[in-house]
Amino acid sequence: MEALRYSKAAYDKYLMYGDISTKAAHMLSLPKVSDFFTRLIQRVSPKSYQQAFGEVYVTQKFLENFCGDQVRFLARSFAVPGNHLGQQSHGFRWPYGPVAIITPFNFPLEIPVLQLMGALYMGNKPVLKVDSKVSIVMEQMLRLLHTCGLPVEDVDFINSDGKTMNKLLLEMILDHEVVLNLQANPRMTLFTGSSRVAEKLALDLKGRVKLEDAGFDWKILGPDVHQEDYTAWVCDQDAYACSGQKCSAQSLLFMHENWSKTSLLSKLKDLAERRKLTDLTIGPVLTVTTDSMLEHVNKLLEIPGSKLLFGGRPLEDHSIPSIYGAIKPTAVYVPLEEIMKDNNFELVTKEIFGPFQIITDYKNSQLSVVLDALERMHNHLTAAVVSNDPLFVQEVIGKTVNGTTYAGLRARTTGAPQNHWFGPAGDPRGAGIGTPEAIKLVWSCHREVIYDYGPVSKNWEIPPST
Amino acid sequence: MEALRYSKAAYDKYLMYGDISTKAAHMLSLPKVSDFFTRLIQRVSPKSYQQAFGEVYVTQKFLENFCGDQVRFLARSFAVPGNHLGQQSHGFRWPYGPVAIITPFNFPLEIPVLQLMGALYMGNKPVLKVDSKVSIVMEQMLRLLHTCGLPVEDVDFINSDGKTMNKLLLEMILDHEVVLNLQANPRMTLFTGSSRVAEKLALDLKGRVKLEDAGFDWKILGPDVHQEDYTAWVCDQDAYACSGQKCSAQSLLFMHENWSKTSLLSKLKDLAERRKLTDLTIGPVLTVTTDSMLEHVNKLLEIPGSKLLFGGRPLEDHSIPSIYGAIKPTAVYVPLEEIMKDNNFELVTKEIFGPFQIITDYKNSQLSVVLDALERMHNHLTAAVVSNDPLFVQEVIGKTVNGTTYAGLRARTTGAPQNHWFGPAGDPRGAGIGTPEAIKLVWSCHREVIYDYGPVSKNWEIPPST
Amino acid sequence: MEALRYSKAAYDKYLMYGDISTKAAHMLSLPKVSDFFTRLIQRVSPKSYQQAFGEVYVTQKFLENFCGDQVRFLARSFAVPGNHLGQQSHGFRWPYGPVAIITPFNFPLEIPVLQLMGALYMGNKPVLKVDSKVSIVMEQMLRLLHTCGLPVEDVDFINSDGKTMNKLLLEMILDHEVVLNLQANPRMTLFTGSSRVAEKLALDLKGRVKLEDAGFDWKILGPDVHQEDYTAWVCDQDAYACSGQKCSAQSLLFMHENWSKTSLLSKLKDLAERRKLTDLTIGPVLTVTTDSMLEHVNKLLEIPGSKLLFGGRPLEDHSIPSIYGAIKPTAVYVPLEEIMKDNNFELVTKEIFGPFQIITDYKNSQLSVVLDALERMHNHLTAAVVSNDPLFVQEVIGKTVNGTTYAGLRARTTGAPQNHWFGPAGDPRGAGIGTPEAIKLVWSCHREVIYDYGPVSKNWEIPPST
Amino acid sequence: MEALRYSKAAYDKYLMYGDISTKAAHMLSLPKVSDFFTRLIQRVSPKSYQQAFGEVYVTQKFLENFCGDQVRFLARSFAVPGNHLGQQSHGFRWPYGPVAIITPFNFPLEIPVLQLMGALYMGNKPVLKVDSKVSIVMEQMLRLLHTCGLPVEDVDFINSDGKTMNKLLLEMILDHEVVLNLQANPRMTLFTGSSRVAEKLALDLKGRVKLEDAGFDWKILGPDVHQEDYTAWVCDQDAYACSGQKCSAQSLLFMHENWSKTSLLSKLKDLAERRKLTDLTIGPVLTVTTDSMLEHVNKLLEIPGSKLLFGGRPLEDHSIPSIYGAIKPTAVYVPLEEIMKDNNFELVTKEIFGPFQIITDYKNSQLSVVLDALERMHNHLTAAVVSNDPLFVQEVIGKTVNGTTYAGLRARTTGAPQNHWFGPAGDPRGAGIGTPEAIKLVWSCHREVIYDYGPVSKNWEIPPST
Repeated sequence: MEALRYSKAAYDKYLMYGDISTKAAHMLSLPKVSDFFTRLIQRVSPKSYQQAFGEVYVTQKFLENFCGDQVRFLARSFAVPGNHLGQQSHGFRWPYGPVAIITPFNFPLEIPVLQLMGALYMGNKPVLKVDSKVSIVMEQMLRLLHTCGLPVEDVDFINSDGKTMNKLLLEMILDHEVVLNLQANPRMTLFTGSSRVAEKLALDLKGRVKLEDAGFDWKILGPDVHQEDYTAWVCDQDAYACSGQKCSAQSLLFMHENWSKTSLLSKLKDLAERRKLTDLTIGPVLTVTTDSMLEHVNKLLEIPGSKLLFGGRPLEDHSIPSIYGAIKPTAVYVPLEEIMKDNNFELVTKEIFGPFQIITDYKNSQLSVVLDALERMHNHLTAAVVSNDPLFVQEVIGKTVNGTTYAGLRARTTGAPQNHWFGPAGDPRGAGIGTPEAIKLVWSCHREVIYDYGPVSKNWEIPPST
Repeated sequence: MEALRYSKAAYDKYLMYGDISTKAAHMLSLPKVSDFFTRLIQRVSPKSYQQAFGEVYVTQKFLENFCGDQVRFLARSFAVPGNHLGQQSHGFRWPYGPVAIITPFNFPLEIPVLQLMGALYMGNKPVLKVDSKVSIVMEQMLRLLHTCGLPVEDVDFINSDGKTMNKLLLEMILDHEVVLNLQANPRMTLFTGSSRVAEKLALDLKGRVKLEDAGFDWKILGPDVHQEDYTAWVCDQDAYACSGQKCSAQSLLFMHENWSKTSLLSKLKDLAERRKLTDLTIGPVLTVTTDSMLEHVNKLLEIPGSKLLFGGRPLEDHSIPSIYGAIKPTAVYVPLEEIMKDNNFELVTKEIFGPFQIITDYKNSQLSVVLDALERMHNHLTAAVVSNDPLFVQEVIGKTVNGTTYAGLRARTTGAPQNHWFGPAGDPRGAGIGTPEAIKLVWSCHREVIYDYGPVSKNWEIPPST
Repeated sequence: MEALRYSKAAYDKYLMYGDISTKAAHMLSLPKVSDFFTRLIQRVSPKSYQQAFGEVYVTQKFLENFCGDQVRFLARSFAVPGNHLGQQSHGFRWPYGPVAIITPFNFPLEIPVLQLMGALYMGNKPVLKVDSKVSIVMEQMLRLLHTCGLPVEDVDFINSDGKTMNKLLLEMILDHEVVLNLQANPRMTLFTGSSRVAEKLALDLKGRVKLEDAGFDWKILGPDVHQEDYTAWVCDQDAYACSGQKCSAQSLLFMHENWSKTSLLSKLKDLAERRKLTDLTIGPVLTVTTDSMLEHVNKLLEIPGSKLLFGGRPLEDHSIPSIYGAIKPTAVYVPLEEIMKDNNFELVTKEIFGPFQIITDYKNSQLSVVLDALERMHNHLTAAVVSNDPLFVQEVIGKTVNGTTYAGLRARTTGAPQNHWFGPAGDPRGAGIGTPEAIKLVWSCHREVIYDYGPVSKNWEIPPST
Repeated sequence: MEALRYSKAAYDKYLMYGDISTKAAHMLSLPKVSDFFTRLIQRVSPKSYQQAFGEVYVTQKFLENFCGDQVRFLARSFAVPGNHLGQQSHGFRWPYGPVAIITPFNFPLEIPVLQLMGALYMGNKPVLKVDSKVSIVMEQMLRLLHTCGLPVEDVDFINSDGKTMNKLLLEMILDHEVVLNLQANPRMTLFTGSSRVAEKLALDLKGRVKLEDAGFDWKILGPDVHQEDYTAWVCDQDAYACSGQKCSAQSLLFMHENWSKTSLLSKLKDLAERRKLTDLTIGPVLTVTTDSMLEHVNKLLEIPGSKLLFGGRPLEDHSIPSIYGAIKPTAVYVPLEEIMKDNNFELVTKEIFGPFQIITDYKNSQLSVVLDALERMHNHLTAAVVSNDPLFVQEVIGKTVNGTTYAGLRARTTGAPQNHWFGPAGDPRGAGIGTPEAIKLVWSCHREVIYDYGPVSKNWEIPPST
């Protein structure tokens, strides 16, 4: 039964999107193409070559996952026998029809491609709005997709002019109104971006949204100490890669007292300090100014027992405009008991979308306090439990709800490869990205069709009314 | 890994809920218990013994579906190998935690039990509010569940006093505020009831809802005429059982011209007229008065070409209070071309939650007009395509989005047995009920846990920052 | 948990095989490569360019299905909560380890590539034996796969010399003994080929086999007549494409009496007679001589009421060696009542692996006789029910067990695209090919790992023995 | 589409078997019924009350799993869109039709009920043969099932007379011939019993079998020592419950040297010695005589370095006939290096279906030797890895293939609850029991039905032949 409603030749589209994915994946695998997109990303989104290339690579691998028949396999339905001969109940994942996609500045290629193709694979008709500062990347990618066979009428792409660039949030809402004008009634809107806009959109659209908003992501180092160098390196990457401008960046690190006795903190400091502007391993922050970030540090340092571990100063010798932020990778220590106080909690758990983290420690007996802190936080995007002790891991996982939680000695907070779900949990509006499960749950709804062909028994007679 | 977060002994709860379901299903299978609940339902919700018994029976069968290990099987997760030895990504369905359930008057047992148990099976902590007019049924059922082992602290049950009983919708919102006071922040609220309250709740709760709201449900009789008697009987039951007070009741019937030539309409009239108040095969309407319904009929009869097919008069010889409605099973014919006119469409497709339907017909060449009408409707709950012609069925199913669609010569609009999904489609807030799929999608969210235990390669060295 | 047992770097292999598939699919999509393989197939297996190209195309599409992460997705496991905290039961599909693959002459590329890659994807160590007459195709394909990254040590390829080419079946058994010598104990052997060898292997290997053996495939034309030209064309292709040398070729056609009244038979004759040797739309038969086939026709014509519909004569003007067969596309009519007689049934249902079919017809009242005939046949590979009447289709499907059954007005017996299971049913040894399901069921076994990490309750005490 | 082929009213049967399971589960939950079956089991199969009750309880819980709609949910199929509008490919699990079940003496209720109901749930027509010594249990259970609604014609039950009771294996083969006479051609036979008969049956039935044969099951205690008492108790139960007459009984224990330093062995000895004949915590062995077992012990003690740890003597003060075995719970230590020698390996790994185990130890550096030993064994039924070190567990699981493998500090070799697959792995003939997966894989085969209803394009023209 047809599960692609809004196109004249729905069935051919399953095969067509398999072909488009095959061709586009192959294009992105060509060094000159991937280098082009990597450098284009770098021009608009400040990150190292390797981080920008990572986006291109994940996008290529995502497309490889939906070659051949894999798009139609997403439309796999199920059926169970009914109550009598000839009756069978079929469960389909059905497209919404007209949908909207709104994506942010920090992943100009990966987020829009993965969500756009997901929407198309499931049979929807999407309108796409990418943050204006970076939308050139997706504009070029759409041309590539058109070359690979994407019909121009299958996607509407909205590209606002630069006038409102300084008022990011307002602009997105305005753009969103444009969206609404263009397509009178999107049945579902996927939004990735700030919590503030997310809540506004949820109201405007009466809840017909899926959201992947900001994260305040934590990591716990458990009682078993292994692999100090490795753990330090993962922490540094989690907190400071892309200058902390990933929604999965490590914002709060809980160290078990056994780790406090190691040289972990000094290793973290050394790693943070080798980052430099020239290769963009540290760079401009697009949504928070230097002054705001330093002011936040100073407020934290007023908390009794808190101290600056490293960073806390502006970057030097740069030409980054003052509307952006530019600070060295920074960590502030705050004692656990202070974090838990009502007048401090909100301050400590405020998300700073830049190269900044809080570090604290806990005693064996304080695990329940740590778990209380996690329960009080609003966002449940990513988390990490660094431990190879199954009972410790079990305890923390069982008491938390973060959407993407890494556990084990190699656990990290960042990392959203194409092979696993990435998204917040604990909220019916939470969206995922990339995997078959994410695509099906975000971009389609359940529809049940009960076939009931008969026969009617030959000696059937009209029964009494009920 | 633990997937029941909010209870001290989560694991035992999987088995405990299997046991509770086994025992409660057995209780409901005992004639004196099922008779008790059937009559109790009849006392508060006007329907025939057989219709009320149907609720009890579906509830029993639902509980049978989650005996033994079947509750833990709902928590089935999946895993795929990761990027290196020791890494594996697990996809779980995870509970929300604190949740709320608000259910309506017309199914006092079936809807609250199925949703409540679904919420519990997936590990949530629910607060339940049933429409005050009928909440005595669920109050008794909770006592039965407690006897079967349900811990009293697992469910909060809110039972408002009767003061506001005449102002149903307002009351539900007020009750809802009580809900919010009781449990500061339900992460998800399931609402079954009117569209108006649903939209209000979606705003109040910023979209953290799942809805099963009202339906304006259509049926199409295709070009192939079979089984006239059978089809007439199904139409009569779909439109008038429970006096039309099912959200899946047939509201609009499209007859292919081949059916117009048969005696179907006269058979429909005969069947409607054998319904009588004494056995409640026709009875009081709780949310629309007699005057409102007759006024609606009169407005429709002003449309050129329309005519009263049968009914259209008040019930006689009854003591139903005038705050309720009481009319004979009624059908009004309106020509298809008139239905499609802008000034008529809203009137014709207005939901009347009583024993009332619109009937129209269409020529072979007018199928696309019918499909346009279906697309213009707002609600997408149930539908029926009465035809054994695979190509006709395919055409209609492929162009529509109703959540529960029956197709084939035995197709109907009502009927939501425990073995198939029942809920609206085309809206990310749409809820389902009863099946394993519905329980998992409504009462849990996706969580991904990536185990990454290592080892780290022995010759691993710290790489450059990125 | 690792599900690839027999390799040093199992995890990397999931990703490696995704990469190999991506590259090999791209290679086969290049016109010069696909043309090379198409012509190579034609040199050893007599079929038209288009039929040979079909093999290459299906192989390419199959490889596209397992790009990127799709190989690791095949290793997807599931888990359910256990009886107490810390216990979880995981169901894996686990590789056998050393396995053997034996494939026939008629699909020199498609069958060995699909089964070989399936075996590798699931983590096995295969030894491959392709029929010696055609093994050059796979020898070239292995070189292509090596170029795409397949490690040479992952597959053993056995290529016997040409001495025993005239004694096909014996040769295969001998080769098989070589297989056993090479790899002392294959835990599973996949065999595609003749029934006789299949049964021998099942004994030699004590049932540790999966089989896709010969087929005697039937088609039923139902009571509803549609699309005469289309149906005739599908019948012609099903019976005579590849000169009938597909295991899914149509061997027996049951026409409802409503079809007998049409010009279907004369259309079949016209279509059969336009086939010609020059473009290999008819060509040599590799396993049955001309004399054997004509002798079979003559025996059939001795049955009362039977008649030659067309064909029944040798091909002319050719240089096909007499060890092969060469006859015109042939159809013999035998009355249904005669087919059912004990002394005729075996003769009529004897498989002739060449351009030959039986045609019969049946009255409305004789459907049960037809169904009895189907039940008496030994092989249950493919079948077709040409009807758009859901009740007729339901009746035939419900009473039969063929592995791949097409139903509907476009039904055919041949056609094994990469997106659906293809294999016999009704036998626990039956193998499938190509789809994710087939790969998982044929090339892996179930393994359950129950993690039970504890904790043990602190006040646990040793209980009495039981 | 109908997936129950061999019954007149297949569809009703799905619901009927849900009802039978509901009723039979309820019956077994009644104390007087479960006590009756527990004592009946004890009369024919020597085990403690608690072990016999365990069978009844697992059987009850199994039946609870298939109440209500859960039988029809086993018939859940899937579908994917085809290549053009109107085509859809459906994958079904289809019954074989006539099947046979042959079950052993040691679980007179659990094994036959779980396999019989599995066969019926999937739509087969089974003939059942239970070991004659214990078949009275199943004879009574069938009467219970008949009372619960099982139609007498749905199951054939073969009960051989007592003449051949002393020649168990031969008898089973003879019985099997009776089976073949009764039902000319079972398409699949499930056999649970000894390896010798299994191999004979595999030949007789040309591989159309699923087998769960004997096990030689190992346990490894890893380097991390936890919970000595708990571990000792689990080892004692694994080796000696039911006098070792479980196919999952612990036959070979590998202790890491860290465990050798503990008092584990003395605890094992104490636990073994508290077993006594009066409550059947030790009792008669039905298939091996006392002399055979003691002779085996003596042969083992000839190996250099081996020693008797405990037991090794006949039971005293009993009236067990000499055709059965009667020895005290026994353990023999053999050094690992000696086990690995070619002339010892077969002796040490010989299965003794009685209260007997081998114990050895290994150094940290010898793990690979242990893994080699596991690879050399023929049977791959159950295994246990007692460790909470994820890297150790991963290493052992990744290099082995046992069907049911427990891992973690609570790991055991016995225990086959109804919620997880239980069966051997590494063999395409391997059967599972009890879970939805086991039932589907053992008792049904894949069938693909491709619906292809059209339409055919209006401007379709006959293409050239290929």
